[in-house]
Amino acid sequence: MRIAVIGAGNSGLATAAYFKKYGYFVTLWNRTEKNIANLKQSRRIKVLGIWDTTFIVDIVTSDIKEAIQGVDLILVTTPSDSHKDIARLIAPYVKEESIIILNPGRTFGAIEVKQILLQEANVCPIIGETQTILYTCRKIQEDVVSLLAIKRNVQIAFLSKDGHSIFKHLPKCYSCNLILVDSILITSLGNVGMILHCAPVLFNIGWIENKGVAFKYYYAGITPSIANFLECMDKERIMVANKLGVDVLLVQDWLKKSYKTWGNTLYECLQNNDAYKTIDAPSTLKHRYIMEDVCTGLVPVEYIAHQLGIVVPHISLVIDIAEKVVDFPFREKGRKMDILDLK
Amino acid sequence: MRIAVIGAGNSGLATAAYFKKYGYFVTLWNRTEKNIANLKQSRRIKVLGIWDTTFIVDIVTSDIKEAIQGVDLILVTTPSDSHKDIARLIAPYVKEESIIILNPGRTFGAIEVKQILLQEANVCPIIGETQTILYTCRKIQEDVVSLLAIKRNVQIAFLSKDGHSIFKHLPKCYSCNLILVDSILITSLGNVGMILHCAPVLFNIGWIENKGVAFKYYYAGITPSIANFLECMDKERIMVANKLGVDVLLVQDWLKKSYKTWGNTLYECLQNNDAYKTIDAPSTLKHRYIMEDVCTGLVPVEYIAHQLGIVVPHISLVIDIAEKVVDFPFREKGRKMDILDLK
Repeated sequence: MRIAVIGAGNSGLATAAYFKKYGYFVTLWNRTEKNIANLKQSRRIKVLGIWDTTFIVDIVTSDIKEAIQGVDLILVTTPSDSHKDIARLIAPYVKEESIIILNPGRTFGAIEVKQILLQEANVCPIIGETQTILYTCRKIQEDVVSLLAIKRNVQIAFLSKDGHSIFKHLPKCYSCNLILVDSILITSLGNVGMILHCAPVLFNIGWIENKGVAFKYYYAGITPSIANFLECMDKERIMVANKLGVDVLLVQDWLKKSYKTWGNTLYECLQNNDAYKTIDAPSTLKHRYIMEDVCTGLVPVEYIAHQLGIVVPHISLVIDIAEKVVDFPFREKGRKMDILDLK
Repeated sequence: MRIAVIGAGNSGLATAAYFKKYGYFVTLWNRTEKNIANLKQSRRIKVLGIWDTTFIVDIVTSDIKEAIQGVDLILVTTPSDSHKDIARLIAPYVKEESIIILNPGRTFGAIEVKQILLQEANVCPIIGETQTILYTCRKIQEDVVSLLAIKRNVQIAFLSKDGHSIFKHLPKCYSCNLILVDSILITSLGNVGMILHCAPVLFNIGWIENKGVAFKYYYAGITPSIANFLECMDKERIMVANKLGVDVLLVQDWLKKSYKTWGNTLYECLQNNDAYKTIDAPSTLKHRYIMEDVCTGLVPVEYIAHQLGIVVPHISLVIDIAEKVVDFPFREKGRKMDILDLK
């Protein structure tokens, strides 16, 4: 099985190295050629952290045709606000039997990609998405990645009635860390980034914009009042999921499951989560915590909620603030799925 | 002329001392008796700063009747969200010829007090309001106030066609620091606190709630993005004033006039204002910057705007955030004047 990894960021480098470890033929694509200039020459990715080894990928390219042609599995590891562009780029080379997986899809990513592939090339491959990123990792240099952990039981879902046979067909080294769920509604509405990432940035603008006054994002930036607000947003997300007939975990329960933290409130669960204690806050508002998570998290949830006749006042308020403070038309640019698309 | 000073906070202590300096008979009232326990015994107010003297007021009391009866001029120095309660308390003792001045009125304070006095006691005294506080001062102890400056040319307006003769009748030591304007619409819509106080607190929740991480309110807490947002709010305030036929200054122009600061943007004017550089941020969201300024600044402006058919999206957004984050019904509890009341 030949695998294309789309994106050479944190997660892309870790993914490419991971599949080379298990002996697969791996192509690695990145849009911006200058960001892979050295890698293109050497094809060597150094992995620190849980391993300390170097892997040589087979092709490193910014030519999407070269990256995609002849591969069976396309793993998209870019931020979700670029899924649209990626879909347009790959459309001419995708086949019906290709498997495309968004790692992760954020909210309704698989549906967005399906729609674009149909429009652009009238092709309908197998499309899946994960609920979150698979690796806890940070890109250190262009060709060096620190891989701190491989997550377990990460949810995956396919836009197909035959998810089970697709899942069985995946490389074992990949599927062993995943857990198949019935519907991309579960992975999409299980997107916790939209809750944890957007509002805390907006309630910390002053602190974030004061250069040289760094602070820990989860530990200091999410105070009791902010966590309380996030719990209200989270209940709105759960309400939308339930109205669509799916069960998803509250963020605090997701944290308990994913990180073995504990507490009676979201605030307590965050304060007790050692894994989050060192994570720094962004130093700008134009960060993926806003630019990505509002577009591909809050906007699609609000849009679907309104079609379902549900108001989501806390979520709507955060989109309103983001639009005014960042001066970007998030609602216009974000994912807006028709309720029929979900069926 | 006998004068009652209502409220023994920062401004009340300074006001009482100021009139004693000029030899007036002064009564000082405070609602909470335990906050004036010593003062009631000694009647001595020590003033630091521009003077270093002690003044003895004539009566210190928490009995409103004792404070008000027989006085000619009632100066209300309490936060504006208590104007309603003060009006109810003084109603039985006010006469048609009494002069009541709110220092300051915030937005539509004089109208609110007039309506309550009419309802409660069918009395219609002379009511005025100032555009801002007259003294730059801080209460240091129950009976000690640091008086750093007496402002000049503070706007005052009366709910009367005969403002000029009322103004002439005021003690010279008071009116010499004031400038008479035609309408309380000018003082009310010239309220800059609603712009400078509310949004910066809400965009700094994390910083404010991290105890021990103090920061300077105007200098660090109002960053370029936040100042830009405040400029948008400010234009909405000016638009409402213009629609009502009155001219008021933009906050940045008001700052230039009041503090001799300079700059092309609100951000620059704040950064260049030495008088603001030492002012600390609040340490809680339940501060008068929210509790008072949303209720008696943003809510009345939004309410009037909607009656005028104007949308004020930035102002409305700040009220929305305050309602959700502080969990207080600001729109329900705030000042809501009918457009007819203004005429």
